[in-house]
Amino acid sequence: MQRLTLQDAEKALAAGLAKATEIGQPMNVAVVDDGGHLLAFARQDGAIRVSIDIAQRKARTSILMNLPTAALTPLVQPGAELYGLEQTSGGLVTFGGGIPIHRDGELVGAVGVSAGSVEQDVTVAEAAVAALA
Amino acid sequence: MQRLTLQDAEKALAAGLAKATEIGQPMNVAVVDDGGHLLAFARQDGAIRVSIDIAQRKARTSILMNLPTAALTPLVQPGAELYGLEQTSGGLVTFGGGIPIHRDGELVGAVGVSAGSVEQDVTVAEAAVAALA
Amino acid sequence: MQRLTLQDAEKALAAGLAKATEIGQPMNVAVVDDGGHLLAFARQDGAIRVSIDIAQRKARTSILMNLPTAALTPLVQPGAELYGLEQTSGGLVTFGGGIPIHRDGELVGAVGVSAGSVEQDVTVAEAAVAALA
Amino acid sequence: MQRLTLQDAEKALAAGLAKATEIGQPMNVAVVDDGGHLLAFARQDGAIRVSIDIAQRKARTSILMNLPTAALTPLVQPGAELYGLEQTSGGLVTFGGGIPIHRDGELVGAVGVSAGSVEQDVTVAEAAVAALA
Repeated sequence: MQRLTLQDAEKALAAGLAKATEIGQPMNVAVVDDGGHLLAFARQDGAIRVSIDIAQRKARTSILMNLPTAALTPLVQPGAELYGLEQTSGGLVTFGGGIPIHRDGELVGAVGVSAGSVEQDVTVAEAAVAALA
Repeated sequence: MQRLTLQDAEKALAAGLAKATEIGQPMNVAVVDDGGHLLAFARQDGAIRVSIDIAQRKARTSILMNLPTAALTPLVQPGAELYGLEQTSGGLVTFGGGIPIHRDGELVGAVGVSAGSVEQDVTVAEAAVAALA
Repeated sequence: MQRLTLQDAEKALAAGLAKATEIGQPMNVAVVDDGGHLLAFARQDGAIRVSIDIAQRKARTSILMNLPTAALTPLVQPGAELYGLEQTSGGLVTFGGGIPIHRDGELVGAVGVSAGSVEQDVTVAEAAVAALA
Repeated sequence: MQRLTLQDAEKALAAGLAKATEIGQPMNVAVVDDGGHLLAFARQDGAIRVSIDIAQRKARTSILMNLPTAALTPLVQPGAELYGLEQTSGGLVTFGGGIPIHRDGELVGAVGVSAGSVEQDVTVAEAAVAALA
C-alpha cells in the first residue's frame, strides 16, 4: 500500500478549499490517513466552529466504514438497519461530507468536509478527493 | 471585536433571571464568551439540576453553530439533513433556549437557558440577550 | 437541613469577587449545592479560562470529600495514602481553593476559586464562605 | 482584537514545518484561535500519531492558561503548587511545545507542536509563532 503523504493531504486540502471558495461557502476540511488519524486540516474564515469536529468525524467515519458518510444516512434512520450506529466507535457522523480515498483498490485515507449544506459539503469533499485521482 | 465583560454577562444574567421570575418558572441561565467559555451562571431555587449542563451546552452550541439552538431542531429530526448532529463536538443541544450575542455583526458570546418548557426557555434567553442590545 | 439558596450563593460569590478585586487578582468563583451541582459562577475580566473548570471541580471535590481541597494536597503526593485520588469521581482537584460550607454542622454547599496562586485562591474562597457565616 | 485568519495560521504552520524539516524531526503542528478552536494542522511524514492529540492539547492549554506549556512543567510536579493540573479542563498538556500568540498585548491564538523531544517541539513552536511577529 502506498500511504498518503502530507504532500498528498495538502493537495487534497488545497483542492477542497479552492472549491469552497468557488462556491462561496467557508469550510472546515480534514484529511486523515488509513487509520483515521489526522494528516491535515484547515478552517476558512467565517466557517462555523462546530464543523472542526464534524469534518474530522466524517473523515474518520469514512475510514471506519470504508464508505462515504452520505451512504450511511438512510441506514441510520428510525426503523432502518443501523439505527443508532452514530453512537458507536466514539461517535460517528452519518450525513454526507466524508469520502474515503482509495488507491489501487486499497483504502489509504479519507476527506471530511463540514460547514455548508450537506450538498455543499459533498461537493467540496469530492473536489478534494478528485485532486488525488 | 469588543469582548463581553463580566459586567455585560451579569447584565444579561440579571435580565434573564428577572424574566424567569416574571413568568414564574425557575431557570438556569448561562452566559459564555465568543469561544464558548463560561462567564456567568445562576440557578434559581427550584430549577431542575439537569439544566445546569443543558443551559451551558445551549450557549456553547449557539457559539459553535452561530445560530439559536431553536433553529437546529428541524434540521436534526429523523430524515432531516443534520440528523445526529447533537452527537458531535462533545455533545450539542438542538432544542430552543440558546441564542448567540452579536455586536456590530460579530459573534461575541451566547446565552443558554434551561429548566422550563422550550418556549419559556427561549423567552428568558431573548430577555437576557435583549439586555445587551 | 437548610439548603443554600441562589441568594446565599450570590452573597458568597459577591464576597469572593470583592476580595479578588481587593487583592488585584481576577478570579473564577463557583458556588455549588450540597450535591455538588452548580448554583452560581462568575469569571472576572482577565482571569484565565482554565480555571472555569478548576473552580467548579474544587467546589465539587470539597463536597465529595467534605474537606477543603487544600487538605488533600499532602495525601495525594507520590507515596502518600491517596496517591491517584484525583483520577476518581470524574476528576478531582487536590490543591487549595475549594472549601465546604457548613450550617449547623451539616454540609450545605461549597465554594471553589481559581486563577491566582493557591494562596490567593484560598484567601478568596475563605472570604466567600465567611460571607455566609 | 484582531482575530487570527486562516492565512495567519497557514503562515505560522509553514514556518513551523520548515523549522522541523531543518532540524530533521518530523512534527505535528497545530494552530488554534483565541477560543482554543483549531484553525490549521499538519502532520509530517514519519511523525508519531500520538502527537496529533498532544499538539492540539498543547495549543489549547496555552490558550486556557495564557502561558507557554513549558512554564507549567515545574508547577505540576509532585509537591508543587499545581500538582494534578493536567487532569482538569478536559485534559491539559504540561510539557513544552505550546506557545500563545499575542497581538497588541491580547491573546489571539496559540501554536502546539509535538513529536520530537520537548526541546525540539519548543524550537519549532517558537519558529511558528515568530512568523506572525
